Amino acid sequence: MKSHTLLMPLDMHLHLRDGVMLETVAPLTSYSFSGAVVMPNLVPPVTTKEALRAYKKRIYAALGRLEDANDVLMVDDFFEPYMTLFYQNYDRAFLEEMADEIAALKLYPAGITTNSDSGVKTFDLEIMRPTLEAMSDLDIPLCVHGETDGFVMDREAEFMSIYEMLASHFPKLKIIMEHITTKEAAAMLERYPNLYATITVHHLLITLDDVAGGMLQPHLFCKPIAKRPEDREALLHLALNAHPKVMFGSDSAPHPQHAKETCGCAAGVFTAPIALQLLCELFDAYGKLDNLQSFVSDNAQSIYGICPEFKEVVLVETPFTVPEHYGKVIPMYAGETLAWSISDIE
Amino acid sequence: MKSHTLLMPLDMHLHLRDGVMLETVAPLTSYSFSGAVVMPNLVPPVTTKEALRAYKKRIYAALGRLEDANDVLMVDDFFEPYMTLFYQNYDRAFLEEMADEIAALKLYPAGITTNSDSGVKTFDLEIMRPTLEAMSDLDIPLCVHGETDGFVMDREAEFMSIYEMLASHFPKLKIIMEHITTKEAAAMLERYPNLYATITVHHLLITLDDVAGGMLQPHLFCKPIAKRPEDREALLHLALNAHPKVMFGSDSAPHPQHAKETCGCAAGVFTAPIALQLLCELFDAYGKLDNLQSFVSDNAQSIYGICPEFKEVVLVETPFTVPEHYGKVIPMYAGETLAWSISDIE
Repeated sequence: MKSHTLLMPLDMHLHLRDGVMLETVAPLTSYSFSGAVVMPNLVPPVTTKEALRAYKKRIYAALGRLEDANDVLMVDDFFEPYMTLFYQNYDRAFLEEMADEIAALKLYPAGITTNSDSGVKTFDLEIMRPTLEAMSDLDIPLCVHGETDGFVMDREAEFMSIYEMLASHFPKLKIIMEHITTKEAAAMLERYPNLYATITVHHLLITLDDVAGGMLQPHLFCKPIAKRPEDREALLHLALNAHPKVMFGSDSAPHPQHAKETCGCAAGVFTAPIALQLLCELFDAYGKLDNLQSFVSDNAQSIYGICPEFKEVVLVETPFTVPEHYGKVIPMYAGETLAWSISDIE
Repeated sequence: MKSHTLLMPLDMHLHLRDGVMLETVAPLTSYSFSGAVVMPNLVPPVTTKEALRAYKKRIYAALGRLEDANDVLMVDDFFEPYMTLFYQNYDRAFLEEMADEIAALKLYPAGITTNSDSGVKTFDLEIMRPTLEAMSDLDIPLCVHGETDGFVMDREAEFMSIYEMLASHFPKLKIIMEHITTKEAAAMLERYPNLYATITVHHLLITLDDVAGGMLQPHLFCKPIAKRPEDREALLHLALNAHPKVMFGSDSAPHPQHAKETCGCAAGVFTAPIALQLLCELFDAYGKLDNLQSFVSDNAQSIYGICPEFKEVVLVETPFTVPEHYGKVIPMYAGETLAWSISDIE
């Protein structure tokens, strides 16, 4: 039986939500991954030290790692939530205070996706400069949801000029183009040394055809929306060859079933519990399994300068039928059978 | 109060379905329109004289016009179903026999939309020639669902070469590009004198942004899918100026609510009961109300050579709140308020 071992897999873009949803989804990620960069777009967004610490505490609680408990952790239960603050024009003193507790700041253009209303309204460099300079000096990466409010298929490509502006004005700031979906973003990686990217597993697998080419598939509807075949090809080229500036970030985004299967379905694909299995199948199909380690961990460690504790995740080529639901969340490929499974660690 | 009178409005592309659905939707069209070209994609499709006559009889029954009854029809109840056959490579004798009973043949590429599995698999002119020549001689229009099986945003543009082949090889055959959605199709109208088009009301109003740019909106999901802003502009230009080769065809396509609000939502927008109200609002907003008569009736009469009995439909600028549902069908803009209403005729 074919198997493949991954060391310290990392999900560099994850939505853990809060409350009951957090309790449902957090263990599904910690089962497969060593750590994840946790998005701050709660309601209200995570913008203070207190909110960040309280959220991290709730994440630990959801993982059975209450700070006041004496649980002995299994190695395969170890999981590090890399916390992020919702981008605002914070002052240097605050960022200095927070630097050791955060992995990055996450910037959302206002109103562009789920819970992003208090995001950035205009990209005025003079207003943003103190914050971005402090981030640059403190080596705090800037993660960006790069979409304009233009036509849905053009939003990411239109945002490239903002990336160019940020990358050229702050050449030492690490800027991570999150969940890229277009050939334009793929090309942008080569133009500025300080631009990086995350790619989801679903954008490696689907195009708009899968969302709306046959029947309409709400569980494949996400933001940024899946694009054209040539865009998917560009992303595949980056991922399969483990481009050193590219990391895996699932953007796994759980919504309760009722919010997905209704008029006005929310955007987000829930992939946390199937991401590594899908990636193994995909990389194996292209004969690129040897590059998966870099894509799901090594590149991220280099780019973020992080060093997760040792964890080994063994995948085996044994069929895995995706559950119809996890709690109230319907995963991608619910009820379908994948070629690879995660082997339970003895 | 502003009002606008339309004479003999015609819907040149309509799905009436069958059974209970037919009974629900047929009166909604006959209330507003003088007649409609009825699509033949039932299960099984309408391909025989017997099936066509039986379907027409069921339509009459749904309208309360049973042939064996002595109902005295109100003028405003008069409605003519212009019947179509599902395109197959019929022989000349059959078409000669049917010519007086049909308005057109409707061609579907196989598998391209709802109930189209038995459509045309390859456009082989030598195989199709006898049928198309007979249609040309008998002046039977060919209505075409013009999409390839390519990427969803490209399917109509990719089909243009098929239109060119058909139009150039059969220069006397009237070819109607149904429910066009792209600037490519709009441009094609100018290149061949025997190409015509229908345009829906929803493709004049929405783009892919409305379907998938915010939340996902299953009730705006249709085939062909709504395209880009520049495509919508091209359609608006044709319709608002009542281009003489362009007719209104709603492509109103009812599905029961459960088939729309689910994973794997069916394609189709139900507009029959609100189409004229929406068109009045739209044409009025552009100061083009005077062109609406041509778009919704006169052009169709000229192109098809039909002469509907007199019927007057008066629209008034009085708010109309769209019902949440008609039977089990959710209409476009359910629960929203439109600016124009149809005035009840005394």
